[in-house]
Amino acid sequence: MSNTELKDFFPIWNKLTEAQQQRLLTAAELRSAKGGTILHNGSMDCLGLLLIRSGQLRVYTLSSEGREITLYRLFELDTCLFSASCVMPDIQFDVVVEAEKDSDFYILPSCLFKDLMEESAAIANYANQLISSRFSEVMWLMDQIMWKSFDKRLAKFLLEESALEGSPSLKLTHERIANHMGTAREVVTRMLRYFQSEGMVTLTRGAVELTDPARLEQLAE
Amino acid sequence: MSNTELKDFFPIWNKLTEAQQQRLLTAAELRSAKGGTILHNGSMDCLGLLLIRSGQLRVYTLSSEGREITLYRLFELDTCLFSASCVMPDIQFDVVVEAEKDSDFYILPSCLFKDLMEESAAIANYANQLISSRFSEVMWLMDQIMWKSFDKRLAKFLLEESALEGSPSLKLTHERIANHMGTAREVVTRMLRYFQSEGMVTLTRGAVELTDPARLEQLAE
Repeated sequence: MSNTELKDFFPIWNKLTEAQQQRLLTAAELRSAKGGTILHNGSMDCLGLLLIRSGQLRVYTLSSEGREITLYRLFELDTCLFSASCVMPDIQFDVVVEAEKDSDFYILPSCLFKDLMEESAAIANYANQLISSRFSEVMWLMDQIMWKSFDKRLAKFLLEESALEGSPSLKLTHERIANHMGTAREVVTRMLRYFQSEGMVTLTRGAVELTDPARLEQLAE
Repeated sequence: MSNTELKDFFPIWNKLTEAQQQRLLTAAELRSAKGGTILHNGSMDCLGLLLIRSGQLRVYTLSSEGREITLYRLFELDTCLFSASCVMPDIQFDVVVEAEKDSDFYILPSCLFKDLMEESAAIANYANQLISSRFSEVMWLMDQIMWKSFDKRLAKFLLEESALEGSPSLKLTHERIANHMGTAREVVTRMLRYFQSEGMVTLTRGAVELTDPARLEQLAE
Protein backbone atom coordinates (compact mmCIF):
# COMPACT_ATOMS: atom_id res chain seq x y z
CA MET A 1 0.00 0.00 0.00
CA SER A 2 1.42 3.38 -0.87
CA ASN A 3 1.98 6.18 1.58
CA THR A 4 -0.12 8.55 -0.51
CA GLU A 5 -3.04 6.20 -0.53
CA LEU A 6 -3.08 5.68 3.25
CA LYS A 7 -3.06 9.44 3.77
CA ASP A 8 -6.43 9.63 2.05
CA PHE A 9 -7.91 7.31 4.67
CA PHE A 10 -6.18 8.77 7.69
CA PRO A 11 -6.70 12.52 7.96
CA ILE A 12 -4.35 12.38 10.97
CA TRP A 13 -1.52 10.68 9.03
CA ASN A 14 0.94 13.49 9.75
CA LYS A 15 0.36 13.20 13.48
CA LEU A 16 1.75 9.65 13.46
CA THR A 17 5.38 8.81 14.06
CA GLU A 18 7.33 7.39 11.15
CA ALA A 19 7.41 4.01 12.91
CA GLN A 20 3.62 4.01 13.28
CA GLN A 21 3.16 4.97 9.63
CA GLN A 22 5.47 2.13 8.65
CA ARG A 23 3.53 -0.42 10.72
CA LEU A 24 0.29 0.61 9.03
CA LEU A 25 1.87 0.45 5.58
CA THR A 26 3.34 -2.99 6.20
CA ALA A 27 0.23 -4.51 7.74
CA ALA A 28 -2.37 -3.25 5.24
CA GLU A 29 -3.54 -6.07 3.02
CA LEU A 30 -5.44 -5.57 -0.22
CA ARG A 31 -8.56 -7.69 -0.69
CA SER A 32 -11.58 -7.77 -2.89
CA ALA A 33 -15.06 -9.23 -2.50
CA LYS A 34 -17.89 -9.96 -4.91
CA GLY A 35 -21.17 -8.17 -4.40
CA GLY A 36 -23.29 -10.16 -1.95
CA THR A 37 -20.38 -11.40 0.20
CA ILE A 38 -20.80 -11.14 3.99
CA LEU A 39 -17.55 -9.60 5.26
CA HIS A 40 -18.28 -9.41 8.95
CA ASN A 41 -20.98 -11.13 10.96
CA GLY A 42 -21.46 -9.69 14.43
CA SER A 43 -19.33 -10.96 17.26
CA MET A 44 -18.44 -14.08 15.29
CA ASP A 45 -15.40 -12.47 13.76
CA CYS A 46 -13.06 -9.53 13.99
CA LEU A 47 -11.62 -8.98 10.57
CA GLY A 48 -10.08 -5.57 11.15
CA LEU A 49 -10.51 -2.05 9.88
CA LEU A 50 -11.65 -1.92 6.24
CA LEU A 51 -10.43 0.98 4.09
CA ILE A 52 -12.61 1.05 1.02
CA ARG A 53 -10.90 1.71 -2.32
CA SER A 54 -13.95 1.07 -4.47
CA GLY A 55 -17.37 -0.49 -4.25
CA GLN A 56 -20.13 -0.27 -1.71
CA LEU A 57 -20.64 -1.87 1.71
CA ARG A 58 -23.92 -2.17 3.58
CA VAL A 59 -23.99 -2.27 7.37
CA TYR A 60 -27.15 -3.68 8.90
CA THR A 61 -28.51 -5.28 12.06
CA LEU A 62 -30.58 -8.39 12.50
CA SER A 63 -33.40 -8.75 15.00
CA SER A 64 -33.61 -11.97 17.03
CA GLU A 65 -36.24 -13.10 14.51
CA GLY A 66 -33.83 -12.49 11.63
CA ARG A 67 -35.37 -9.28 10.29
CA GLU A 68 -32.95 -6.75 8.82
CA ILE A 69 -32.59 -2.99 8.80
CA THR A 70 -29.89 -1.10 6.93
CA LEU A 71 -28.02 1.29 9.25
CA TYR A 72 -25.83 2.97 6.64
CA ARG A 73 -23.74 2.42 3.52
CA LEU A 74 -20.01 2.91 3.08
CA PHE A 75 -18.36 4.02 -0.13
CA GLU A 76 -14.95 4.79 -1.65
CA LEU A 77 -12.58 6.31 0.95
CA ASP A 78 -14.85 5.40 3.86
CA THR A 79 -13.49 3.34 6.74
CA CYS A 80 -15.45 0.49 8.24
CA LEU A 81 -14.82 0.41 11.97
CA PHE A 82 -17.33 -2.18 13.15
CA SER A 83 -15.51 -5.00 11.39
CA ALA A 84 -12.92 -4.35 14.14
CA SER A 85 -15.45 -3.83 16.95
CA CYS A 86 -13.83 -6.57 19.05
CA VAL A 87 -11.16 -4.03 20.00
CA MET A 88 -13.87 -1.83 21.56
CA PRO A 89 -15.42 -3.81 24.42
CA ASP A 90 -18.04 -1.12 25.08
CA ILE A 91 -19.69 -1.72 21.72
CA GLN A 92 -22.41 -4.05 22.95
CA PHE A 93 -24.25 -4.69 19.70
CA ASP A 94 -23.66 -6.72 16.58
CA VAL A 95 -23.82 -5.58 13.01
CA VAL A 96 -23.39 -7.39 9.71
CA VAL A 97 -21.18 -5.90 6.99
CA GLU A 98 -21.94 -6.97 3.45
CA ALA A 99 -20.21 -6.07 0.19
CA GLU A 100 -23.29 -4.76 -1.57
CA LYS A 101 -21.39 -4.34 -4.84
CA ASP A 102 -18.04 -5.75 -5.97
CA SER A 103 -15.58 -4.02 -3.65
CA ASP A 104 -11.83 -3.49 -3.17
CA PHE A 105 -10.48 -2.62 0.24
CA TYR A 106 -7.46 -2.72 2.49
CA ILE A 107 -7.67 -4.62 5.76
CA LEU A 108 -5.80 -3.39 8.82
CA PRO A 109 -5.58 -6.11 11.48
CA SER A 110 -7.63 -5.42 14.62
CA CYS A 111 -4.73 -6.09 16.97
CA LEU A 112 -2.52 -3.53 15.22
CA PHE A 113 -5.30 -0.96 15.39
CA LYS A 114 -5.81 -1.69 19.09
CA ASP A 115 -2.09 -1.23 19.80
CA LEU A 116 -1.99 2.05 17.89
CA MET A 117 -5.13 3.36 19.65
CA GLU A 118 -3.45 2.69 22.97
CA GLU A 119 -0.20 4.43 22.14
CA SER A 120 -1.39 7.30 19.92
CA ALA A 121 -3.93 9.93 20.98
CA ALA A 122 -4.26 10.88 17.30
CA ILE A 123 -5.39 7.36 16.35
CA ALA A 124 -7.68 7.11 19.38
CA ASN A 125 -9.33 10.41 18.43
CA TYR A 126 -9.63 9.22 14.85
CA ALA A 127 -11.50 6.10 16.06
CA ASN A 128 -13.62 8.47 18.10
CA GLN A 129 -14.51 10.44 14.99
CA LEU A 130 -15.49 7.29 13.12
CA ILE A 131 -17.75 6.10 15.95
CA SER A 132 -19.29 9.56 16.28
CA SER A 133 -20.08 9.69 12.56
CA ARG A 134 -21.74 6.27 12.58
CA PHE A 135 -23.60 7.12 15.79
CA SER A 136 -24.89 10.25 14.06
CA GLU A 137 -26.12 8.22 11.09
CA VAL A 138 -27.99 5.85 13.40
CA MET A 139 -29.55 8.80 15.29
CA TRP A 140 -30.72 10.22 11.97
CA LEU A 141 -32.24 6.85 11.09
CA MET A 142 -33.98 6.60 14.46
CA ASP A 143 -35.43 10.05 13.95
CA GLN A 144 -36.80 8.93 10.59
CA ILE A 145 -38.27 5.73 12.01
CA MET A 146 -39.82 7.47 15.00
CA TRP A 147 -41.31 10.52 13.40
CA LYS A 148 -41.59 10.11 9.64
CA SER A 149 -44.45 8.23 8.08
CA PHE A 150 -43.63 5.21 5.96
CA ASP A 151 -44.69 6.79 2.65
CA LYS A 152 -42.12 9.59 3.14
CA ARG A 153 -39.39 7.13 4.14
CA LEU A 154 -40.06 4.91 1.12
CA ALA A 155 -40.09 7.87 -1.29
CA LYS A 156 -36.76 9.04 0.15
CA PHE A 157 -35.29 5.55 -0.04
CA LEU A 158 -36.25 5.15 -3.73
CA LEU A 159 -34.77 8.55 -4.59
CA GLU A 160 -31.51 7.75 -2.77
CA GLU A 161 -31.19 4.37 -4.48
CA SER A 162 -31.84 6.00 -7.81
CA ALA A 163 -29.11 8.59 -7.11
CA LEU A 164 -26.69 5.83 -6.05
CA GLU A 165 -27.36 3.79 -9.18
CA GLY A 166 -27.48 6.81 -11.46
CA SER A 167 -30.68 5.46 -12.97
CA PRO A 168 -34.46 5.78 -12.49
CA SER A 169 -34.70 2.00 -12.94
CA LEU A 170 -34.02 0.01 -9.75
CA LYS A 171 -33.47 -3.74 -9.73
CA LEU A 172 -34.87 -4.35 -6.26
CA THR A 173 -37.40 -6.86 -5.04
CA HIS A 174 -40.00 -5.78 -2.48
CA GLU A 175 -38.36 -8.24 -0.07
CA ARG A 176 -35.00 -6.48 -0.46
CA ILE A 177 -36.54 -3.05 0.10
CA ALA A 178 -38.27 -4.39 3.22
CA ASN A 179 -34.90 -5.62 4.54
CA HIS A 180 -33.35 -2.20 4.00
CA MET A 181 -36.17 -0.45 5.78
CA GLY A 182 -36.80 -2.88 8.60
CA THR A 183 -40.36 -3.66 7.69
CA ALA A 184 -42.44 -6.49 6.24
CA ARG A 185 -42.63 -7.20 2.52
CA GLU A 186 -46.41 -6.75 2.47
CA VAL A 187 -46.06 -3.20 3.83
CA VAL A 188 -43.64 -2.33 1.02
CA THR A 189 -45.84 -3.94 -1.64
CA ARG A 190 -48.92 -2.08 -0.46
CA MET A 191 -47.18 1.30 -0.51
CA LEU A 192 -45.48 0.69 -3.89
CA ARG A 193 -48.89 -0.18 -5.37
CA TYR A 194 -50.24 3.08 -4.02
CA PHE A 195 -47.27 4.95 -5.56
CA GLN A 196 -48.01 3.17 -8.85
CA SER A 197 -51.69 4.13 -8.73
CA GLU A 198 -50.54 7.74 -8.28
CA GLY A 199 -48.21 7.47 -11.29
CA MET A 200 -45.02 7.93 -9.29
CA VAL A 201 -43.54 4.51 -10.09
CA THR A 202 -44.06 1.58 -12.44
CA LEU A 203 -43.68 -1.90 -11.02
CA THR A 204 -42.38 -4.88 -12.94
CA ARG A 205 -41.03 -8.23 -11.74
CA GLY A 206 -38.03 -7.54 -9.45
CA ALA A 207 -37.81 -3.88 -10.48
CA VAL A 208 -39.15 -0.44 -9.66
CA GLU A 209 -39.08 2.37 -12.22
CA LEU A 210 -39.29 5.94 -10.91
CA THR A 211 -41.65 7.64 -13.35
CA ASP A 212 -42.31 10.88 -11.45
CA PRO A 213 -39.23 11.69 -9.32
CA ALA A 214 -40.42 15.26 -8.77
CA ARG A 215 -43.56 14.09 -6.98
CA LEU A 216 -41.54 11.58 -4.97
CA GLU A 217 -39.26 14.46 -3.92
CA GLN A 218 -42.28 16.48 -2.89
CA LEU A 219 -43.61 13.57 -0.86
CA ALA A 220 -40.22 12.92 0.79
CA GLU A 221 -39.87 16.52 2.02
CA MET B 1 -12.58 17.67 44.41
CA SER B 2 -10.57 14.92 45.99
CA ASN B 3 -8.18 12.67 44.17
CA THR B 4 -9.98 9.57 45.45
CA GLU B 5 -13.28 10.80 44.14
CA LEU B 6 -12.02 11.54 40.62
CA LYS B 7 -10.52 8.06 40.43
CA ASP B 8 -14.03 6.62 40.69
CA PHE B 9 -15.05 8.49 37.55
CA PHE B 10 -11.89 7.89 35.54
CA PRO B 11 -10.99 4.21 35.36
CA ILE B 12 -7.86 5.35 33.52
CA TRP B 13 -6.76 7.75 36.29
CA ASN B 14 -3.43 5.99 36.81
CA LYS B 15 -2.56 6.33 33.13
CA LEU B 16 -2.56 10.12 33.43
CA THR B 17 0.51 12.18 34.26
CA GLU B 18 0.56 13.96 37.58
CA ALA B 19 0.19 17.28 35.77
CA GLN B 20 -2.91 16.04 33.92
CA GLN B 21 -4.42 14.75 37.16
CA GLN B 22 -3.77 18.13 38.75
CA ARG B 23 -5.47 20.01 35.91
CA LEU B 24 -8.57 17.84 36.27
CA LEU B 25 -8.64 18.28 40.05
CA THR B 26 -8.28 22.04 39.81
CA ALA B 27 -10.85 22.52 37.06
CA ALA B 28 -13.62 20.29 38.42
CA GLU B 29 -16.44 22.40 39.80
CA LEU B 30 -19.17 21.07 42.05
CA ARG B 31 -22.76 21.99 41.12
CA SER B 32 -26.22 20.89 41.95
CA ALA B 33 -29.53 21.13 40.13
CA LYS B 34 -33.13 20.68 41.18
CA GLY B 35 -35.14 17.93 39.54
CA GLY B 36 -36.67 19.25 36.33
CA THR B 37 -33.76 21.55 35.41
CA ILE B 38 -32.55 21.43 31.80
CA LEU B 39 -28.75 21.17 32.00
CA HIS B 40 -27.88 20.99 28.33
CA ASN B 41 -29.97 21.86 25.32
CA GLY B 42 -28.56 20.58 22.04
CA SER B 43 -26.04 22.68 20.20
CA MET B 44 -27.08 25.78 22.11
CA ASP B 45 -24.54 25.19 24.83
CA CYS B 46 -21.45 23.22 25.76
CA LEU B 47 -21.38 22.95 29.50
CA GLY B 48 -18.68 20.30 29.81
CA LEU B 49 -18.38 16.76 31.07
CA LEU B 50 -20.74 16.00 33.96
CA LEU B 51 -19.55 13.54 36.62
CA ILE B 52 -22.61 12.53 38.58
CA ARG B 53 -22.21 12.25 42.37
CA SER B 54 -25.89 11.67 43.10
CA GLY B 55 -29.26 12.01 41.43
CA GLN B 56 -30.54 11.05 38.02
CA LEU B 57 -30.20 12.61 34.57
CA ARG B 58 -32.37 11.93 31.57
CA VAL B 59 -30.97 12.26 28.06
CA TYR B 60 -33.56 12.64 25.32
CA THR B 61 -34.03 13.89 21.77
CA LEU B 62 -36.69 16.16 20.34
CA SER B 63 -38.26 15.71 16.93
CA SER B 64 -38.72 18.80 14.76
CA GLU B 65 -42.34 18.79 15.96
CA GLY B 66 -41.18 18.85 19.58
CA ARG B 67 -41.95 15.23 20.44
CA GLU B 68 -39.60 13.55 22.91
CA ILE B 69 -38.05 10.15 23.34
CA THR B 70 -35.81 9.15 26.25
CA LEU B 71 -32.51 7.70 25.02
CA TYR B 72 -31.07 6.67 28.38
CA ARG B 73 -30.69 7.67 32.04
CA LEU B 74 -27.49 8.44 33.93
CA PHE B 75 -26.97 7.73 37.61
CA GLU B 76 -24.38 8.04 40.38
CA LEU B 77 -20.83 7.57 39.03
CA ASP B 78 -21.95 7.89 35.41
CA THR B 79 -20.35 10.47 33.15
CA CYS B 80 -22.40 12.61 30.81
CA LEU B 81 -20.43 13.15 27.62
CA PHE B 82 -22.99 14.82 25.38
CA SER B 83 -23.06 17.96 27.49
CA ALA B 84 -19.55 18.41 26.04
CA SER B 85 -20.46 17.28 22.51
CA CYS B 86 -19.15 20.54 21.04
CA VAL B 87 -15.63 19.11 21.38
CA MET B 88 -16.62 16.24 19.04
CA PRO B 89 -17.48 17.79 15.68
CA ASP B 90 -18.57 14.45 14.23
CA ILE B 91 -21.50 14.20 16.63
CA GLN B 92 -24.14 15.56 14.26
CA PHE B 93 -27.20 15.33 16.47
CA ASP B 94 -28.60 17.20 19.42
CA VAL B 95 -29.74 15.83 22.73
CA VAL B 96 -31.28 17.43 25.79
CA VAL B 97 -29.93 16.59 29.25
CA GLU B 98 -32.33 17.10 32.13
CA ALA B 99 -31.82 16.60 35.87
CA GLU B 100 -34.73 14.21 36.37
CA LYS B 101 -34.22 14.24 40.13
CA ASP B 102 -32.27 16.61 42.39
CA SER B 103 -28.67 15.96 41.34
CA ASP B 104 -25.09 16.75 42.41
CA PHE B 105 -22.31 16.62 39.88
CA TYR B 106 -18.87 17.90 38.98
CA ILE B 107 -18.43 19.84 35.75
CA LEU B 108 -15.21 19.52 33.78
CA PRO B 109 -14.89 22.35 31.24
CA SER B 110 -15.19 21.24 27.60
CA CYS B 111 -12.01 22.99 26.54
CA LEU B 112 -9.92 21.21 29.19
CA PHE B 113 -11.40 17.88 28.13
CA LYS B 114 -10.63 18.65 24.49
CA ASP B 115 -7.00 19.51 25.33
CA LEU B 116 -6.56 16.33 27.35
CA MET B 117 -8.12 14.17 24.61
CA GLU B 118 -5.61 15.59 22.17
CA GLU B 119 -2.56 14.97 24.34
CA SER B 120 -3.50 11.72 26.09
CA ALA B 121 -4.37 8.47 24.34
CA ALA B 122 -5.79 7.22 27.65
CA ILE B 123 -8.30 10.09 27.83
CA ALA B 124 -9.16 9.76 24.13
CA ASN B 125 -9.84 6.05 24.60
CA TYR B 126 -11.90 6.83 27.67
CA ALA B 127 -14.07 9.21 25.60
CA ASN B 128 -14.27 6.42 23.07
CA GLN B 129 -15.62 4.03 25.71
CA LEU B 130 -18.24 6.54 26.80
CA ILE B 131 -19.47 7.09 23.24
CA SER B 132 -19.49 3.35 22.57
CA SER B 133 -21.59 2.71 25.69
CA ARG B 134 -24.15 5.36 24.77
CA PHE B 135 -24.19 4.17 21.16
CA SER B 136 -24.92 0.67 22.47
CA GLU B 137 -27.83 1.95 24.57
CA VAL B 138 -29.31 3.71 21.55
CA MET B 139 -28.92 0.57 19.42
CA TRP B 140 -30.75 -1.41 22.12
CA LEU B 141 -33.51 1.19 22.09
CA MET B 142 -33.78 1.07 18.30
CA ASP B 143 -34.05 -2.69 18.43
CA GLN B 144 -36.93 -2.33 20.91
CA ILE B 145 -38.70 0.27 18.80
CA MET B 146 -38.29 -1.67 15.57
CA TRP B 147 -39.16 -5.15 16.69
CA LYS B 148 -40.98 -5.14 20.01
CA SER B 149 -44.69 -4.46 20.20
CA PHE B 150 -45.83 -1.48 22.25
CA ASP B 151 -47.48 -3.55 25.03
CA LYS B 152 -44.14 -5.27 25.77
CA ARG B 153 -42.25 -1.97 25.72
CA LEU B 154 -44.74 -0.30 28.05
CA ALA B 155 -44.71 -3.25 30.49
CA LYS B 156 -40.90 -3.13 30.53
CA PHE B 157 -40.89 0.63 31.03
CA LEU B 158 -43.27 0.43 34.02
CA LEU B 159 -41.20 -2.31 35.64
CA GLU B 160 -37.97 -0.34 35.16
CA GLU B 161 -39.50 2.83 36.60
CA SER B 162 -40.80 0.86 39.54
CA ALA B 163 -37.32 -0.62 40.15
CA LEU B 164 -35.77 2.88 39.89
CA GLU B 165 -38.25 4.37 42.37
CA GLY B 166 -38.20 1.33 44.63
CA SER B 167 -41.98 1.42 44.70
CA PRO B 168 -44.94 -0.11 42.82
CA SER B 169 -46.59 3.31 42.85
CA LEU B 170 -45.45 5.61 40.03
CA LYS B 171 -46.22 9.31 39.93
CA LEU B 172 -46.29 9.62 36.17
CA THR B 173 -48.82 11.23 33.87
CA HIS B 174 -49.71 9.50 30.59
CA GLU B 175 -48.19 12.53 28.84
CA ARG B 176 -44.87 11.99 30.62
CA ILE B 177 -44.82 8.28 29.78
CA ALA B 178 -45.54 9.16 26.15
CA ASN B 179 -42.56 11.53 26.16
CA HIS B 180 -40.28 8.82 27.49
CA MET B 181 -41.40 6.34 24.89
CA GLY B 182 -41.67 8.59 21.87
CA THR B 183 -45.35 8.06 21.26
CA ALA B 184 -48.65 9.92 21.59
CA ARG B 185 -50.49 10.28 24.90
CA GLU B 186 -53.59 8.56 23.49
CA VAL B 187 -51.57 5.45 22.64
CA VAL B 188 -50.30 5.25 26.24
CA THR B 189 -53.76 5.84 27.72
CA ARG B 190 -55.30 3.13 25.58
CA MET B 191 -52.70 0.55 26.56
CA LEU B 192 -52.76 1.48 30.26
CA ARG B 193 -56.54 1.03 30.25
CA TYR B 194 -56.08 -2.39 28.72
CA PHE B 195 -53.49 -3.23 31.43
CA GLN B 196 -55.99 -2.05 34.03
CA SER B 197 -58.78 -4.19 32.58
CA GLU B 198 -56.40 -7.16 32.88
CA GLY B 199 -55.69 -6.31 36.53
CA MET B 200 -52.00 -5.51 35.96
CA VAL B 201 -52.20 -1.84 37.00
CA THR B 202 -54.56 0.55 38.75
CA LEU B 203 -54.86 4.06 37.32
CA THR B 204 -55.51 7.16 39.37
CA ARG B 205 -55.01 10.84 38.51
CA GLY B 206 -51.31 11.36 37.66
CA ALA B 207 -50.28 7.94 38.94
CA VAL B 208 -49.95 4.31 37.93
CA GLU B 209 -49.92 1.54 40.51
CA LEU B 210 -48.41 -1.80 39.51
CA THR B 211 -50.79 -4.37 40.96
CA ASP B 212 -49.50 -7.50 39.20
CA PRO B 213 -45.76 -7.08 38.48
CA ALA B 214 -45.37 -10.79 37.81
CA ARG B 215 -47.75 -10.64 34.85
CA LEU B 216 -46.09 -7.47 33.60
CA GLU B 217 -42.75 -9.33 33.73
CA GLN B 218 -44.26 -12.18 31.76
CA LEU B 219 -45.60 -9.76 29.16
CA ALA B 220 -42.28 -7.90 28.91
CA GLU B 221 -40.29 -11.08 28.17
